[in-house]
Amino acid sequence: MLKIALGQMEVLPGRPDINTDKMLSMIQHARNERADLIIFPEMAIPGYLLGDTWEQPSFLRDCEAFGQQIIAASRDICVIFGNVAVDWDRHGDDGRVRKHNACFVAQAGRLIGTCIKTLQPNYREFDDTRHFFSLRKLALERNQNIDSLLTPVTVTIRNDKYRLGCIICEDGWNDDYNIDPIAILRTQGPLDLIINISSSPFTLGKNNKRNRVFSKQAQETGVPLIYLNTTGIQNNGKTVYTFDGFSTVYNRLGEIIAYCPPFTETLDYLDLPVKAAGQDLAPTSVPDDSTIDSIYLTLSYGIKKFLQSIGMNKVVIGLSGGIDSAVSAALFASILHPENILLVNMPSKFNSQTTRDLAAQLAQNLGCLYTVMPIEQSVEYTASQIAGTPITNLANGRQCNLLVSSFVLENIQARDRSSRLLAGIAAAFGGGFTCNANKSELTVGYSTLYGDQAGFLAALADLWKYQVYQLANYLNDKVYGREVIPQAIIDLMPSAELSYDQSVDQGKGDPIIYAYHDYLFRAFMEHWNRATPEDILNWYSQGTAVLEQKLGCQDGLINKLFSSPREFIEDLERWWRLYTGMAVAKRIQAPPVLAVSRRVYGFDHREAQNRVYFTQEYLRIKDRLLSTM
Amino acid sequence: MLKIALGQMEVLPGRPDINTDKMLSMIQHARNERADLIIFPEMAIPGYLLGDTWEQPSFLRDCEAFGQQIIAASRDICVIFGNVAVDWDRHGDDGRVRKHNACFVAQAGRLIGTCIKTLQPNYREFDDTRHFFSLRKLALERNQNIDSLLTPVTVTIRNDKYRLGCIICEDGWNDDYNIDPIAILRTQGPLDLIINISSSPFTLGKNNKRNRVFSKQAQETGVPLIYLNTTGIQNNGKTVYTFDGFSTVYNRLGEIIAYCPPFTETLDYLDLPVKAAGQDLAPTSVPDDSTIDSIYLTLSYGIKKFLQSIGMNKVVIGLSGGIDSAVSAALFASILHPENILLVNMPSKFNSQTTRDLAAQLAQNLGCLYTVMPIEQSVEYTASQIAGTPITNLANGRQCNLLVSSFVLENIQARDRSSRLLAGIAAAFGGGFTCNANKSELTVGYSTLYGDQAGFLAALADLWKYQVYQLANYLNDKVYGREVIPQAIIDLMPSAELSYDQSVDQGKGDPIIYAYHDYLFRAFMEHWNRATPEDILNWYSQGTAVLEQKLGCQDGLINKLFSSPREFIEDLERWWRLYTGMAVAKRIQAPPVLAVSRRVYGFDHREAQNRVYFTQEYLRIKDRLLSTM
Repeated sequence: MLKIALGQMEVLPGRPDINTDKMLSMIQHARNERADLIIFPEMAIPGYLLGDTWEQPSFLRDCEAFGQQIIAASRDICVIFGNVAVDWDRHGDDGRVRKHNACFVAQAGRLIGTCIKTLQPNYREFDDTRHFFSLRKLALERNQNIDSLLTPVTVTIRNDKYRLGCIICEDGWNDDYNIDPIAILRTQGPLDLIINISSSPFTLGKNNKRNRVFSKQAQETGVPLIYLNTTGIQNNGKTVYTFDGFSTVYNRLGEIIAYCPPFTETLDYLDLPVKAAGQDLAPTSVPDDSTIDSIYLTLSYGIKKFLQSIGMNKVVIGLSGGIDSAVSAALFASILHPENILLVNMPSKFNSQTTRDLAAQLAQNLGCLYTVMPIEQSVEYTASQIAGTPITNLANGRQCNLLVSSFVLENIQARDRSSRLLAGIAAAFGGGFTCNANKSELTVGYSTLYGDQAGFLAALADLWKYQVYQLANYLNDKVYGREVIPQAIIDLMPSAELSYDQSVDQGKGDPIIYAYHDYLFRAFMEHWNRATPEDILNWYSQGTAVLEQKLGCQDGLINKLFSSPREFIEDLERWWRLYTGMAVAKRIQAPPVLAVSRRVYGFDHREAQNRVYFTQEYLRIKDRLLSTM
Repeated sequence: MLKIALGQMEVLPGRPDINTDKMLSMIQHARNERADLIIFPEMAIPGYLLGDTWEQPSFLRDCEAFGQQIIAASRDICVIFGNVAVDWDRHGDDGRVRKHNACFVAQAGRLIGTCIKTLQPNYREFDDTRHFFSLRKLALERNQNIDSLLTPVTVTIRNDKYRLGCIICEDGWNDDYNIDPIAILRTQGPLDLIINISSSPFTLGKNNKRNRVFSKQAQETGVPLIYLNTTGIQNNGKTVYTFDGFSTVYNRLGEIIAYCPPFTETLDYLDLPVKAAGQDLAPTSVPDDSTIDSIYLTLSYGIKKFLQSIGMNKVVIGLSGGIDSAVSAALFASILHPENILLVNMPSKFNSQTTRDLAAQLAQNLGCLYTVMPIEQSVEYTASQIAGTPITNLANGRQCNLLVSSFVLENIQARDRSSRLLAGIAAAFGGGFTCNANKSELTVGYSTLYGDQAGFLAALADLWKYQVYQLANYLNDKVYGREVIPQAIIDLMPSAELSYDQSVDQGKGDPIIYAYHDYLFRAFMEHWNRATPEDILNWYSQGTAVLEQKLGCQDGLINKLFSSPREFIEDLERWWRLYTGMAVAKRIQAPPVLAVSRRVYGFDHREAQNRVYFTQEYLRIKDRLLSTM
């Protein structure tokens, strides 16, 4: 029986001093509890998502020195932790000093094993290959097989020897690679325990999959497996990731016998019968992480930690009376004290009494600070200043005036609210203001740059509109247990209310038909093999039921919305042009997005501001469909 | 003697249709000229910087089909071109279909060779490893040596056989790798010609280095070498790169015997004595690419192409009377017709008559459209609306008011100019407005978000302030041949003029002391091993002359600026905190930056919005310096 301490710590990226202090204190606690072994996550000392900080030699020396402190602290206990391993005599492919993402095993104040990450993720937000030299590269360089480099670490605990297979995060997710680190470890004799230290960001539904994958590994090898993941948040600039921890222990049958609570820093203890088959602990069940509960949990945790990380404790939220800002307000009000939230309604002549009243009602329900600052006067002033000030052509002295169209005026309103008012109010209030955009809007740039797209964090920008509604109901039902978001807001037709053409009272609203476009955009953006108009039109040409099934939207919807292939195609091209055109330009200047899904705008979904393109096959299918009308 | 056509084409990223049409027309021209061989750049068909478009199977099929068209067109001529090679039966490390960055050799309408890129850059802006499966990985997967996969391609031209060593871009830059593709090719018998097809972005001074490296390769192997690079621009969202082409031919002695003009799409012809040693063409000299000429060239080319790519032909520039906006205006006016440029002076009460007059003078000199729209009234309105509208605490009904401090007022002004006026004016004018920030400002966030940091492109944001001045003089002396930028603007003390504390007439200006901070920031940002305060303080502690030499700033400057270690340290920490703190948050929402240097903000310099950090060694040096005062 081994007494194992699971150090599911919150790693602060780029703060090795604070991380090391926390590890030392956890080690002390574990020693007092007479634990045999304590495990910390991948990159526990430096943090994981640091951008190009890895290029600073002084930072690397610092991390090494802190690593030595942890090794020195491994008296009377075995300590397993992640850190950067620097090979100062060799260089990486970029010519800089060589760095490995490594797992260190220390005991009796000495380092007794270093395991280098073999498989390095290089998709989504992951940039491991940019910074770290993998065991795979090392084997190629030395012209050796990987098995000669990837070996178990043997530790002696109370006179028993234990052969530990230490791997790092992606090493356990080898399905897409032609290398299987666990299998390689096992070719070298039986293992007693597999330890996977990770720095694995939350993605909706990922733990369900992880439990399937890792259960299978434990079962197939007949070796208990400990997955130890970090908590906290880390970011790559444009995208902010939560880390849920959710460290899990699988017995040799592949059953889950223990897990640490998600999104919680904790030091949990477990008596694991490592050597004794048949003494397995009873299995337990883990919560599903693909539901709206998990979305609320990750958002509220992510927001709280992000505010902490930037030292912000007050926020300003523009409240339109619509669903997105309502959900944003209720979400933030579930995290911060109401006195630290200032809700601002900024009506123009286009805003209905309905939405003004709903905004006030919501503010009342939340008990926050509230104010109304109309924009009518300043928008009129701006429009008349722009249209009324003559422009002189200095080449010939002629004068002319600019024309402010209704479209130009719409965007003037949006910027007036955010850049003129909210930014100023936030500065005076001593906080930041939120961006309430959702993922559908962000996909096609249905928002104004420096207007409603501005803010210090876009907390809802990885939720499709239907998920925003789910969250509204969840906030009312589960978080508040009362109707804080008035049902009328949930029932209202979504509208920007920037012109009389968008009047909610007359049932006019957004050009995005969320019941369909949420799913179309998701196919562009989140599908494993990104759908393009070619795929969409191909499915459509096979029948609208095929398309509806592929997209996952409601049966019969397509024919209700589009009376002909021409209408369908016009709509498809309109949104594709925006998604790959103007919306890219807007996203380049968008605030950081809080990640929920398996594909997030920002650093996860990388994109270039290029010309819009339709494939040749798309054009052929289109021609065929239009000519057979 | 081989007649070789150098297809230095402008590749439009993401437009395989247009690229293929251009290639077909160049092939036709080369055939008419009786060329034996035509060479196109790396990724000539799809383009290179496409973000995650590589994840769209329909796009990949499209590129393959266009590649077939090029192969079919290789009648009576040998065609060498770059394209993506898709292995539909295998997957990459991300689990998606496997893609190679490849060089295709076609002749007589058939494909006769495919060479896969061996070395894939994964630093700066390069993400090759994210998308493409290198020959290195392929060798490891198959457990083969690379030489069995990397082989010369033999083509028969007029009954002579030629052994071509075809490599791709980074394969020729192998200094930092443990693999040398050219050496591997040569182990398989003598080569007649080395061809390096590239998609290599411009970096100030890079061609000088490239000529040294590639000359050496030709000389050491005794084989003539052709470097064929693309022109045009490509981007990764946050950073826009120009591609200078500058395709170059080296003879077997390593001498440059021909080159295509930089930043020019061209189809050049060359009779190369490939087999006949001793008949080498006479060497020629190439222009230096590390001077202000190259900076002007790349900026003007980059701006022109960026405007074309987003379909914009009108720009609005806020003209303060200071140096940055003056250089921006003169630069854009050297590209666009003056009638398509609207210069706007937006004075407040803090703007001196000096700068107002200088703005008007510059506009007059350029002969653009010009207008003056004061911000005083709207700024006052905003300040009084924010301060004058009561805030209600809905929990207890109490009211309070916000206070607009002078700092808050400074930013209100900046946003009033950009988000209220310039954005509205640009929309009414039918164009975009420029961001005139320089690299020093961007480094420490000395600009206002949604204010002077806003715009559709930050064309000067990869220039340190001293380079902005160099460019001002260059524009006057070389581009216009007259003083379009009034000398008084060049001589003026830099100031934001957002308060009376920043009055230029009283000799008060920016807190950034460019003569020193330009160089300090460059050490943080551009130095190969990124300097941190630890390095800076370490050099400082060795003597100010050591530090000045390391930074490259003026001798004796440090002691003139700082009277004590404490002052020096306070300054150092102030800017480091900003650089790694608030400035990161601002850069996340910054416009695309036009690349010039070897490290550019955006996608090249990756960064996370983390907590500010000083290493332990820094704190020790600091303690030592302060205690010995």
